[in-house]
Amino acid sequence: MRYINFEDTTDTVSDEFFMKEALLEAKKALDADEVPIGAVVVHNNKIIARGHNLTETLNDVTAHAEMQAFTAAAHYIGGKYLKECTLYVTVEPCVMCAGASYWSQINRIVFGTRDEKRGYSNVSTTIVHPKTTVISGILERECRDLIQQFFQSKRL
Amino acid sequence: MRYINFEDTTDTVSDEFFMKEALLEAKKALDADEVPIGAVVVHNNKIIARGHNLTETLNDVTAHAEMQAFTAAAHYIGGKYLKECTLYVTVEPCVMCAGASYWSQINRIVFGTRDEKRGYSNVSTTIVHPKTTVISGILERECRDLIQQFFQSKRL
Repeated sequence: MRYINFEDTTDTVSDEFFMKEALLEAKKALDADEVPIGAVVVHNNKIIARGHNLTETLNDVTAHAEMQAFTAAAHYIGGKYLKECTLYVTVEPCVMCAGASYWSQINRIVFGTRDEKRGYSNVSTTIVHPKTTVISGILERECRDLIQQFFQSKRL
Repeated sequence: MRYINFEDTTDTVSDEFFMKEALLEAKKALDADEVPIGAVVVHNNKIIARGHNLTETLNDVTAHAEMQAFTAAAHYIGGKYLKECTLYVTVEPCVMCAGASYWSQINRIVFGTRDEKRGYSNVSTTIVHPKTTVISGILERECRDLIQQFFQSKRL
């Protein structure tokens, strides 16, 4: 468990801090030869759940980083709603994960880089819950480079 | 495990047969005071996975009938794609579940009754995979009555 509690913190500082943690998760996926996407869920400036893409390892299309983080966060909280939580994820959620975030009523989604092909916003920006604030572009370059390099290495 | 192998079977006969099995799953959800939605996944006329809504029991918004059935079916097959499978589900999948079906590339989705509020087709019919055939209205009345009665009983 990691904490952040700066006197003079700003949202941007803490968003970058937690996105770095999501990037660490993404690198775990990379090490397992999975599409490198990572996520953390934060409540009261504390990471309460972590997840990284495990679709190949688990033979399960539902094993996206966000889905695992939602399940783990709800388990930690002891309730299925994540109304006071923020999801940090390195890549824009797909329709499945954005659909799950709707049900969780999560307070904020912060993602690093857009997914031009399969990001939920390609279908509709209204998939997330109306009470959910979505922020993008935090550590965008690092998040994008990680996934682009993975797909480029697969094409060699 | 249940089998169907009629000499003179038609798609409608077998679709009704398997939807009855999905309804049995939905009734298990009802018995647990969960929103009564059930699902089965069928491969070569054999049920390879079952699921019913367990979001309250598991405190997990991702625990929809379809999601559990997808995970179980992939486990049975030993691969994440369900290209030769049919999902039978009593109610139209939500955006999350339809998004999961996209990743699974499932061959067919057969659902009983529409979900006017949260069905994926309210957002976009293109959420499912382009190779997936969607059929609706199988045992529609039974599927609709079950869920309507549940919500009416909650309003008393």
